[in-house]
Amino acid sequence: MRTSIATVCLSGTLEEKLRAASAAGFDGVEIFEQDLVVSPQTPEDIARLARELGLSLDLYQPFRDLEGVDEATFAGNLRRAEAKFALMRRLGMSTILLCSNVGTATIDDDELVAGQLRRLGDLAERYDIDVAYEALAWGRFVSEYDRAWDLVRAADHPRIGTCLDSFHILSRRTDLETIARIPGDKIFFLQLADAPALTMDVLSWSRHHRVFPGEGSWDLTDFLARVAATGYSGPVSLEVFNDSFRQADTYRTAVDGLRSLRWLEAGVSATLNGALGVAVGSAAGSAAGGAAGAGTALDLRPLPEVAEPRAVDFVELSTEDLGTLTRQLHQLGFDFTGFHRSKPHVQLWTRGQARIVISEIDSAAIDRPWSERSPGSYLRGIGFDVDDAEAAMHRATLLHAIEVPREQSHDEEVLRGVFAPDGSEVFFHQSDGTAPAWIREFGTDTGRRASRIDHVNLAQPASHYDESVLFYTSLLNLHAQPSQDVPSPSGLVRSQVMSSADRSIRMPLNVAPVHSELVGDKARAQTSADPYPEHVAISCEDIFEAAAIARARGLDFLAVPQNYYEDLASRFDLDPDFLRRLQEHHVLYDADSAGEFLHFYTSTIGSVFFEMVERRGAYQGFGAPDAPVRLAAQYRRNRGL
Amino acid sequence: MRTSIATVCLSGTLEEKLRAASAAGFDGVEIFEQDLVVSPQTPEDIARLARELGLSLDLYQPFRDLEGVDEATFAGNLRRAEAKFALMRRLGMSTILLCSNVGTATIDDDELVAGQLRRLGDLAERYDIDVAYEALAWGRFVSEYDRAWDLVRAADHPRIGTCLDSFHILSRRTDLETIARIPGDKIFFLQLADAPALTMDVLSWSRHHRVFPGEGSWDLTDFLARVAATGYSGPVSLEVFNDSFRQADTYRTAVDGLRSLRWLEAGVSATLNGALGVAVGSAAGSAAGGAAGAGTALDLRPLPEVAEPRAVDFVELSTEDLGTLTRQLHQLGFDFTGFHRSKPHVQLWTRGQARIVISEIDSAAIDRPWSERSPGSYLRGIGFDVDDAEAAMHRATLLHAIEVPREQSHDEEVLRGVFAPDGSEVFFHQSDGTAPAWIREFGTDTGRRASRIDHVNLAQPASHYDESVLFYTSLLNLHAQPSQDVPSPSGLVRSQVMSSADRSIRMPLNVAPVHSELVGDKARAQTSADPYPEHVAISCEDIFEAAAIARARGLDFLAVPQNYYEDLASRFDLDPDFLRRLQEHHVLYDADSAGEFLHFYTSTIGSVFFEMVERRGAYQGFGAPDAPVRLAAQYRRNRGL
Repeated sequence: MRTSIATVCLSGTLEEKLRAASAAGFDGVEIFEQDLVVSPQTPEDIARLARELGLSLDLYQPFRDLEGVDEATFAGNLRRAEAKFALMRRLGMSTILLCSNVGTATIDDDELVAGQLRRLGDLAERYDIDVAYEALAWGRFVSEYDRAWDLVRAADHPRIGTCLDSFHILSRRTDLETIARIPGDKIFFLQLADAPALTMDVLSWSRHHRVFPGEGSWDLTDFLARVAATGYSGPVSLEVFNDSFRQADTYRTAVDGLRSLRWLEAGVSATLNGALGVAVGSAAGSAAGGAAGAGTALDLRPLPEVAEPRAVDFVELSTEDLGTLTRQLHQLGFDFTGFHRSKPHVQLWTRGQARIVISEIDSAAIDRPWSERSPGSYLRGIGFDVDDAEAAMHRATLLHAIEVPREQSHDEEVLRGVFAPDGSEVFFHQSDGTAPAWIREFGTDTGRRASRIDHVNLAQPASHYDESVLFYTSLLNLHAQPSQDVPSPSGLVRSQVMSSADRSIRMPLNVAPVHSELVGDKARAQTSADPYPEHVAISCEDIFEAAAIARARGLDFLAVPQNYYEDLASRFDLDPDFLRRLQEHHVLYDADSAGEFLHFYTSTIGSVFFEMVERRGAYQGFGAPDAPVRLAAQYRRNRGL
Repeated sequence: MRTSIATVCLSGTLEEKLRAASAAGFDGVEIFEQDLVVSPQTPEDIARLARELGLSLDLYQPFRDLEGVDEATFAGNLRRAEAKFALMRRLGMSTILLCSNVGTATIDDDELVAGQLRRLGDLAERYDIDVAYEALAWGRFVSEYDRAWDLVRAADHPRIGTCLDSFHILSRRTDLETIARIPGDKIFFLQLADAPALTMDVLSWSRHHRVFPGEGSWDLTDFLARVAATGYSGPVSLEVFNDSFRQADTYRTAVDGLRSLRWLEAGVSATLNGALGVAVGSAAGSAAGGAAGAGTALDLRPLPEVAEPRAVDFVELSTEDLGTLTRQLHQLGFDFTGFHRSKPHVQLWTRGQARIVISEIDSAAIDRPWSERSPGSYLRGIGFDVDDAEAAMHRATLLHAIEVPREQSHDEEVLRGVFAPDGSEVFFHQSDGTAPAWIREFGTDTGRRASRIDHVNLAQPASHYDESVLFYTSLLNLHAQPSQDVPSPSGLVRSQVMSSADRSIRMPLNVAPVHSELVGDKARAQTSADPYPEHVAISCEDIFEAAAIARARGLDFLAVPQNYYEDLASRFDLDPDFLRRLQEHHVLYDADSAGEFLHFYTSTIGSVFFEMVERRGAYQGFGAPDAPVRLAAQYRRNRGL
């Protein structure tokens, strides 16, 4: 599948965009006109750079407001078009995007529009240029792709075809059946964007909130499969207007985009092979996939199949404050299992199947600004127990994830992993069904308790949030649940859970509010993200027993206000003794029709804390009503209130 | 007018919110339940704190999902209500907000709902509590205020009244005529919020985008006047859910909120006096206003009338780099007018009526992190030429602006001003029609050219953007134009022009994109605002003459790409000689049906640069299509590209 990306998706200068697209592995780009207009490089410079980078220049865009106008206006519009055609020849480009008229159209007359398109085609012919006519969702008279196709058909000119853009089509929920009626060779271009389910005017939705395939709510696998079935053989191109992407690192966004296309390609390949689901493409499927890919003109490549992970195998924490961290683990009922036999700064603590690997950081070795004096502790990585670690790693590599450099001696378990968008390390490990093989390197697993890692709560940088969703979706087959806003004293925290279908993996992703404040004089405005600590939640069978042990061992519980328990009494019909017991043990409570959730929090060490949870019945949530209580308590602690 | 604010408007803990509301000057607060639930302070503590702070606790909110349910559910809901009534007694509170049922309502039967409200009233009577029933815009069966009022009337219970909330009413565009039919004493509470004109689902709009009166697009003066006319005598309270406010400084947001109510109060006072416009309240008006205020039960107080400013009198820049800055002013045709006679570090440069005051900063005296080594230059303040400086200053003080501390000797012009939300200093000065009186302190004004300050382009911190709009609206009578997004290589810049009706004052306010990036290891995520330089635009009569002089004097023009001029040729039917001349002089061009705009930019010094503009005809814009060209050129310069 030939991949392309519109330069408007990326931050930076035109040259930075082209270099990033090439480095990420795209085959081509769409040149967004404004990127060229503001560039000091001539069209010839750009053409040369693209050649050097191995990028095709697939589409010049946009050309606006041509058709459906009176003759005098149209004559001016043709002159405007001719200037662009001449420019495109200097760029060596052969396809231009024509958007349906949004502003100046005054005449809603199919025959007139078809005639004007035909005359544009005659002009384009002289410059050897193809015109891809697209219905913008907010076009004045032409806003549906099937109407645009009718007009292209009526224009009946070899230089006039249509451009299909998933945003303009799916945002209007137009019936997709007409796609099958368009011959593939009259689809001159294909643009893809996904979008979150928002109820807002389609123009704002389009201009600010598009995301890459797999990051939104639409079924682009189905959409691309329909287009592939027409015989379309051109590039599959991303055109995503997104406020965050526009201000994120250019190369990272490009990689994120290419990952979305590789993931989608594999999904369509699997779909066309008749497989169910989007991410299936086993060894058998691969061969068939190749055949199906050949069946369409898009030449679709599959990815190695991976099932969703079975469990969180371990969490790795890095710390400069080993004493405090291990004391807290002990208070939570973890046992010291051993030092790593060849890495003495690494140790393992376990509580049943919950495994925490701790790597000690030598504070003296850190080059750190004097202002950050408190010793750091942070969540460094997560190990996932998968069916086939090699396939998972291969898939991750094909999805352009960066491997974590890692030394291991010849007699150690091979443990490979990649960096997640937030910098966390994600490892793939294949257990034999009991304890993982790597655990021998620490001695023997002594965990007796029925305990496991219930969920891992991660903080995400706002600019890379959508990238994270796609990362976990495409690499690990996790599914994004609807997002929620959690109020905290310093703003709303956006929270969205990524989970496996059987909920054995649960990872809430959180974006903390960003402050912009004036510090000192006005010339030096500053912004800062409020610290949003990450945490590991451990499941247990008896929360009160766990809390009693923790208390006996001197755990610094996160305080829960009396008011919370009084409110609880008004919300649930709880036995007063039970309520007293909750309060006595600092345990928070939630319930729904499926079951109950009891949990307590520890104080924060560096940027990490722990939660102990007991799930009763089939409760699947995270105690959402309790999150504001935690955030308020952490806010008070941070400020010494 | 008694003022109140819902604690949910503000960031911080409940105690911080109460202290901020009191310090800002509010008479009371609404207690948002969640703020209490997460607080470690008991209800009695909160009641005591409020008493100490002189705040009344006006409304407990929200109570949800009571009515329109089967009998068993209703019995449970009454128990829930009773728990809250008991809690309110401990708080010493007497009014609760009941929101129309959004979730659990199953029965759409007026008689049933009225009966259930009546039974709630009987319960409330026992606790001496009033219930204010409000139609949420997204209520299941009750979503319009007139329907809620019908139900309150049908309930016919002294403890059951209604709550009017401008958001829920204006967002649905419900006919406002019914307000006049509600007796003032049956309106148990009044909540105000403004909102920007957005087309999105009303729930998201409400939860994230409400703003204080004067910061959005609604006519709250009319709304409040209608409620005042009913005889309503309770608090006028702000209930604003806003993502930015929730993460901004608590006290500043409280001041912003109180300012909005004071401004609104004066506007309603003027309206009820039959005056036109919203901010009129002259000496004569004041007396009548008092009478009109007495005519309503709200006791509305006017503000001193101020007309909109006549011109920008001067701009003050602070610099550590006097040589570079003054050289650039000279290149732009400014003349050195003199040093201030008693402040030798202050000097004045003029070009006709364009006056730039420069105050030199002693770099050695600045305590600055080693990382910020480049010498600073920034826009420190703006002086406005107003009709009545004393009235303007008095009005600003009544609107809770903070006065700029300023020393002046006995024989100098009194120049008073206040801090704008971005930290800029805003001065009020009353000229005698020719040169301002303060100019004598610098010698004689030598400006010969027909030149003035055309506009001042300011950067605003995102968290205080709405506050800035209200600041300039309420203090200076400026008007906010629709906002625009300007693409730059580092993201979208939100830009909105504040201007006077006759356009003699033009101030584009800009919010630059914020980056969040990972620096080093993942434990240390950072966010940074891209530097968005501010600038002063100077008008001239002949842009080519100004450019020629500037070039002869060696001005470092901001480079304009060749591609820009080629695109210009395709957009406008320009004479080739004219086009060549534009390019030769680095002059950018825009035109609309009213006229033309020619301008060039200088390089940036510190965080300031200049623009020279020539307006032809009645062109009123700012060359919006050229802004991306400038931003891209500045981006390249910043990065040495």
